[in-house]
Amino acid sequence: MTIKRALLSVYTIGFALVFGGLATAQTRDSLPSWNDGKTKQSIIEFVTKVTKKGSPDFVPPAERVATFDNDGTLWAEQPMYFQLLFALHRVGVLAPQYPEWKNKEPFASLLKGDVKGALAGGEPAIAQIVMASHAGMTSEEFEKIVKDWISTARHPTTKRYYTEMVYQPMLELLAYLRTNGFKNFIVSGGGVEFMRPWTETVYGIPPEQVVGSSIKTTFEMRDGKPVLVRLRELNFINDKEGKPIGIKSHIGRRPIAAFGNSDGDLQMLQWTTAGQGPRFALYVHHTDAEREWAYDRNSSIGRLDKGLSEAQAKGWTVVDMKRDWKVIYPPVKQ
Amino acid sequence: MTIKRALLSVYTIGFALVFGGLATAQTRDSLPSWNDGKTKQSIIEFVTKVTKKGSPDFVPPAERVATFDNDGTLWAEQPMYFQLLFALHRVGVLAPQYPEWKNKEPFASLLKGDVKGALAGGEPAIAQIVMASHAGMTSEEFEKIVKDWISTARHPTTKRYYTEMVYQPMLELLAYLRTNGFKNFIVSGGGVEFMRPWTETVYGIPPEQVVGSSIKTTFEMRDGKPVLVRLRELNFINDKEGKPIGIKSHIGRRPIAAFGNSDGDLQMLQWTTAGQGPRFALYVHHTDAEREWAYDRNSSIGRLDKGLSEAQAKGWTVVDMKRDWKVIYPPVKQ
Repeated sequence: MTIKRALLSVYTIGFALVFGGLATAQTRDSLPSWNDGKTKQSIIEFVTKVTKKGSPDFVPPAERVATFDNDGTLWAEQPMYFQLLFALHRVGVLAPQYPEWKNKEPFASLLKGDVKGALAGGEPAIAQIVMASHAGMTSEEFEKIVKDWISTARHPTTKRYYTEMVYQPMLELLAYLRTNGFKNFIVSGGGVEFMRPWTETVYGIPPEQVVGSSIKTTFEMRDGKPVLVRLRELNFINDKEGKPIGIKSHIGRRPIAAFGNSDGDLQMLQWTTAGQGPRFALYVHHTDAEREWAYDRNSSIGRLDKGLSEAQAKGWTVVDMKRDWKVIYPPVKQ
Repeated sequence: MTIKRALLSVYTIGFALVFGGLATAQTRDSLPSWNDGKTKQSIIEFVTKVTKKGSPDFVPPAERVATFDNDGTLWAEQPMYFQLLFALHRVGVLAPQYPEWKNKEPFASLLKGDVKGALAGGEPAIAQIVMASHAGMTSEEFEKIVKDWISTARHPTTKRYYTEMVYQPMLELLAYLRTNGFKNFIVSGGGVEFMRPWTETVYGIPPEQVVGSSIKTTFEMRDGKPVLVRLRELNFINDKEGKPIGIKSHIGRRPIAAFGNSDGDLQMLQWTTAGQGPRFALYVHHTDAEREWAYDRNSSIGRLDKGLSEAQAKGWTVVDMKRDWKVIYPPVKQ
């Protein structure tokens, strides 16, 4: 190597180090699956101002509470809530133990494969299916049942595992907030014990940061060992007006940022934005019929009607999935 | 300075550095208010084994959940629960708005200064006093009421602020566990919204890590602003069998260590120790009539009877306050 070449080499490496370093600092993108534009910008602006020391909008880390709806916000919810698909599956598994179901709705239709007929009974029918599939066992047995299902069952149309139908841009958002000192909570209408067995692995959200609907449980001694038994009795519905109540009861402080996708999240977004100081509210609007599903004001699942109007009136951030998201789901692991 | 003296000097400094360093490492005491002995040793042994990487008893930080009762475990509870003293105070403040109380028990006795007479009505009387003092306002109004009281009211006999009647050895224990990667939760029969306004400052335990009893709340819009209104209706009693239920519902994982002082904590300790892997259960036994109060099997407040027998039978750690604690309360701030 001549001296000239050696020097050139040193310069090149130095140049690469210096400018490579600058490039990293300036263009490192915590939200790579979000297209540039006002949606992404609104998120970054909010996080920047509440984390900047000395900023009038600075929020201490302990108060950086962010709440996320789950169904339709962090993972998909079509053609029906995944937890309902779990319940339908469980009815099939349990049917041999309940011969009377053959002549009893909604089970009779369900066992003939007529899901639509079974659900025609509306909320009472759904409640019966949920209680039959979610109650009567110990909390530990239920946890195992959920873990077994979530690690094997696949979505009827995409054929993906359900945990592969989480939204990649939202995973990045959760990580981005966490990196910036936020504590992320799930605040879902779904069953709290249906979510907890997998939220830590999938979202990085530990069980104690999951708030959801619940059935009552009772404490019993069985062979000298304490167990919690899941009863066929509703405890709390963590939806609509229930969300601020669940947040108060579980978290005890008001979020500074809330994320939802339906009218069921409206009260959570209202409660969040009514607090003093900087606040952020975001709706995921399902606009992508090709890559996911497109639905809003008239959908029976995840209806976004009043919420969409209020978001527009109040200037909340609305994610247009089709326009704002580069990808929907994470790559499937081989 | 001669060379000899200079060398001596270097040696002396070196000696001090080396041995001073060793001394610090070996004798640094995270629990200085605990007398040496088997109680303190049992705590340190447990924490050491679950935090030592490669140890068969190692527990990952995410699973290091510790739950603490509050009344009688973290702060005093005599001559009656401090929350009841708060309720009695509130009845006096509110009395002018309720002229009918003059002729209605338990309020009539209370307003004449006859606390014993008022409480003679037992649990129904207490429930009436609690609802009168804890419900009917928004959650934000109640928070302010609690903050005002806790920052001004003083204990009838010690004349200390109530937050100065926390146990210094337990504050050290909370900090010791936190330093070792534990997440500390309060799991108390007391009202969750009575504790949350001050637990973060006093114990370093944030609101989302406080589990307690609750009354129902409702979500309302008042002048276009969402509020949560506290109703005169019980929601959940987080005591006895309620503690494991509250833990499951709120935390979603089983603690590996639990701390209590009464039979009301027994099920929490049973639930905690019934889990697989290393477990720790501790009872604070009130044995110090001089520096605090001495009571156990026959006390109406904080009775420790069945729990004491079970602790002895199962080899749980029992703190003898008189013997094990060098001091009871922190020094009073001037």
